Amino acid sequence: MAEVIPNKYRDLFDKKVFAGLTTLMPDGSPQVTPVWIDYDGQHVLFNTAVGRQKDKNLQRDKRVALMLVDPDNPYRYLEVRGAVAERTQEGADDHINKLAKKYLGKDIYPFRQPGEQRVLYKIKPERVSSMG
Amino acid sequence: MAEVIPNKYRDLFDKKVFAGLTTLMPDGSPQVTPVWIDYDGQHVLFNTAVGRQKDKNLQRDKRVALMLVDPDNPYRYLEVRGAVAERTQEGADDHINKLAKKYLGKDIYPFRQPGEQRVLYKIKPERVSSMG
Repeated sequence: MAEVIPNKYRDLFDKKVFAGLTTLMPDGSPQVTPVWIDYDGQHVLFNTAVGRQKDKNLQRDKRVALMLVDPDNPYRYLEVRGAVAERTQEGADDHINKLAKKYLGKDIYPFRQPGEQRVLYKIKPERVSSMG
Repeated sequence: MAEVIPNKYRDLFDKKVFAGLTTLMPDGSPQVTPVWIDYDGQHVLFNTAVGRQKDKNLQRDKRVALMLVDPDNPYRYLEVRGAVAERTQEGADDHINKLAKKYLGKDIYPFRQPGEQRVLYKIKPERVSSMG
């Protein structure tokens, strides 16, 4: 069952929000880290490097939870629970540059490590809850 | 195996940080919501109301992940993975008032609903990771 992000909360994806992304470790326990975040009108998108813990976790278990707190009002937030719809390296470099523009005002993502391969995740929202 | 919060990151518990708290739903999928947060030198503390989703989840599965992003530098953060060491209603009212003082500058927690019973959770840190 897919759900859409309410229009009322779409502005959160235009702000420089660091989303809390939870994935599941091999023993099923949760791991949560901040990520840059994006929305294409259907999927919630984030970008990581191949082989990172979240990348390994998501190839084993596709389920995620994402939390976006409004930086202008911490009592306003959106939670998205869902699953990986697509994992792709195609377009991942362009996408991390797009995020670098949004979050840092830079045309090229400046934190790339030698040999790093970027990977783009598209998350299908299944449950959306919100406050504020 | 207990771990302690590095001194370098203890300031995050003095700031008005909204921690991302992940608990696990009955099917093992993650749920993440913002919470007020506290640290007593040994356990990470938060406070919720009896019967909320996170309260139900934690009585079934004690495992949590917490993310604290520095509001003054979003590239500095702390992740704490661990488990419930104690769930108690004793002292929970005093504790939510302490958090209301920290986050809102109010002596008494102002958001209490009729009939609401507060519950205090103490989390034993088991894995700590950080950046920045």
